[in-house]
Amino acid sequence: MRKRTLTGIKPTGEMHLGNYLGAIRPALALAEEHDAYYFIADYHALNGIKDANALRDYAKSVAAAWLACGLNPTNTCFYRQSDVPEVHELTTMLMAFSAKGLLNRAHAYKSAVEQNIMDNRDPDYHINMGLYTYPVLMAADILIAQADLVPVGYDQKQHIEMARDIAEAFNHAYGEELLKLPSPYFAQQSQVVVGLDGRKMSKSYGNVIPLFASDSQLKKLVNRIQTNSQSIDEVKDPDQCNVFSLYKSFANAQEIEALAERYRQPGMGWGEAKQALFLRLNEELTPIREQYAYWMAYPEKMEEILMDGASRVRALAQEQILRLKEATGLR
Amino acid sequence: MRKRTLTGIKPTGEMHLGNYLGAIRPALALAEEHDAYYFIADYHALNGIKDANALRDYAKSVAAAWLACGLNPTNTCFYRQSDVPEVHELTTMLMAFSAKGLLNRAHAYKSAVEQNIMDNRDPDYHINMGLYTYPVLMAADILIAQADLVPVGYDQKQHIEMARDIAEAFNHAYGEELLKLPSPYFAQQSQVVVGLDGRKMSKSYGNVIPLFASDSQLKKLVNRIQTNSQSIDEVKDPDQCNVFSLYKSFANAQEIEALAERYRQPGMGWGEAKQALFLRLNEELTPIREQYAYWMAYPEKMEEILMDGASRVRALAQEQILRLKEATGLR
Repeated sequence: MRKRTLTGIKPTGEMHLGNYLGAIRPALALAEEHDAYYFIADYHALNGIKDANALRDYAKSVAAAWLACGLNPTNTCFYRQSDVPEVHELTTMLMAFSAKGLLNRAHAYKSAVEQNIMDNRDPDYHINMGLYTYPVLMAADILIAQADLVPVGYDQKQHIEMARDIAEAFNHAYGEELLKLPSPYFAQQSQVVVGLDGRKMSKSYGNVIPLFASDSQLKKLVNRIQTNSQSIDEVKDPDQCNVFSLYKSFANAQEIEALAERYRQPGMGWGEAKQALFLRLNEELTPIREQYAYWMAYPEKMEEILMDGASRVRALAQEQILRLKEATGLR
Repeated sequence: MRKRTLTGIKPTGEMHLGNYLGAIRPALALAEEHDAYYFIADYHALNGIKDANALRDYAKSVAAAWLACGLNPTNTCFYRQSDVPEVHELTTMLMAFSAKGLLNRAHAYKSAVEQNIMDNRDPDYHINMGLYTYPVLMAADILIAQADLVPVGYDQKQHIEMARDIAEAFNHAYGEELLKLPSPYFAQQSQVVVGLDGRKMSKSYGNVIPLFASDSQLKKLVNRIQTNSQSIDEVKDPDQCNVFSLYKSFANAQEIEALAERYRQPGMGWGEAKQALFLRLNEELTPIREQYAYWMAYPEKMEEILMDGASRVRALAQEQILRLKEATGLR
């Protein structure tokens, strides 16, 4: 039987190449070989976004983006967290099996506390319960669908460990393997995507290339990628170049080798490398951009897909809740 | 319009006269004049009860007890918390508006922490998230039904204040009165019910009179109520007597005055006072005992009542969730 994989997608605004290369593309590749459950984590987003229009727009746009990038809703169960009420019932259930001490050690909470202490504030200043209980909700997201594998970066490994800890406490209380223990899945190619300035591409650094930039914007941004000041006559090292680093993510092996050769010979200027990157990038992104515009123009079609996904995952979830209620005596 | 009142009933085992006088009777009186929503708080109970059969039995028995005591399911919406999944969805929503600092101040949590500190343990030792997040779930119980009044003892006043604080934070975030602020309702006659030894009647003191004791058990227990060592010839003070204290809760004004007169005259022995109490008590409890046996024998009839209650409150709850999702941008 194919293993089940699950990913939560937090809608937090405009997507960029870092999201595409770091999350979307590997998740879509994974979905080819697994039974995939991908959901828009809108309840997680509510912790930070108290603007109804922004939350609505982000959720819509992130759904359109994943569909545009090639998510196949026939193979992948694609849904919104907020359309699966069973997740919240499981969250309440799991609370009774989650040690408070476990939650105290969650990275996101701890770093907020450390910041408060540095600022001479109450340790819990401005921390809401949504942030604090986030790992329990995430455990419910995973356990409600009985996922085997959850693709994560190394920095999120702790969330899967917590989901396992909570599931184990639950199973232990009733002496039965009621909840399946999920495993983290580390994508092999999890290299850092560099931004315009050579640092990790991130909205907070202002160095991103938006996924849906028009081709003229894309060209301008590619031209802004920082390079060194070597002249056209000098021999260049492709492995020390931000332009080449991005190029490798979009070209095939032959193309990559061909451009690397140009770097190693005199006579290639940065303009030429940037043009090669732009062309390759634009070739991959043009259909995605068009598909994105299509989905954004037909929200009712997205809605249909998401509601179908919700009804598929809810069938599983309802069965799961019933089983757990019987085991705990809530039924 | 009649005000809406709401009460959560925690199923925690055999009920006694303390529960009957302190909770059941005043709640049933309140239901006469209000639009009443009374629910069995089985998810709250799960925090402490990890034995499926015990939880199931307690939930069944508490439902039978309230029906036996006169809860009228036509006037009162009577349901199980676990049959209203919308409560949990609202809980997740409220988490995003609940300050962690607020929860740190909850009495039940604080006293568990103090005990741990006294025992030289980690402050959060053996504390589960169910206990810690209890006030948020309770806020959701109240706010999902848009209750106006929640009958509480003075010691639980804080829970209503917290529900108000969370509701206010929610309303403030969207500049709209989306959640109705509940008020605590303090029953006028909230005197302490004394147990066999004169202390507050409580299972932890082992001094209770079970609500469903048979009449021979009841007689034995009444005979065990502690009195002073005054002889039959001495004049007695009714206001200093445990027997009289209980008698007042079951007799009418005329009967109370008549017994008080007997106390104030020589010639009344404790046996006589206890017999008077037993007769009055047994008169009130006999039909309740019979009704209790009836409901316990027909669980499918209770089930029908509870499912009907759930469907009534869910109609409200679903409307409420939809409204809140639209306001927050989750829809």
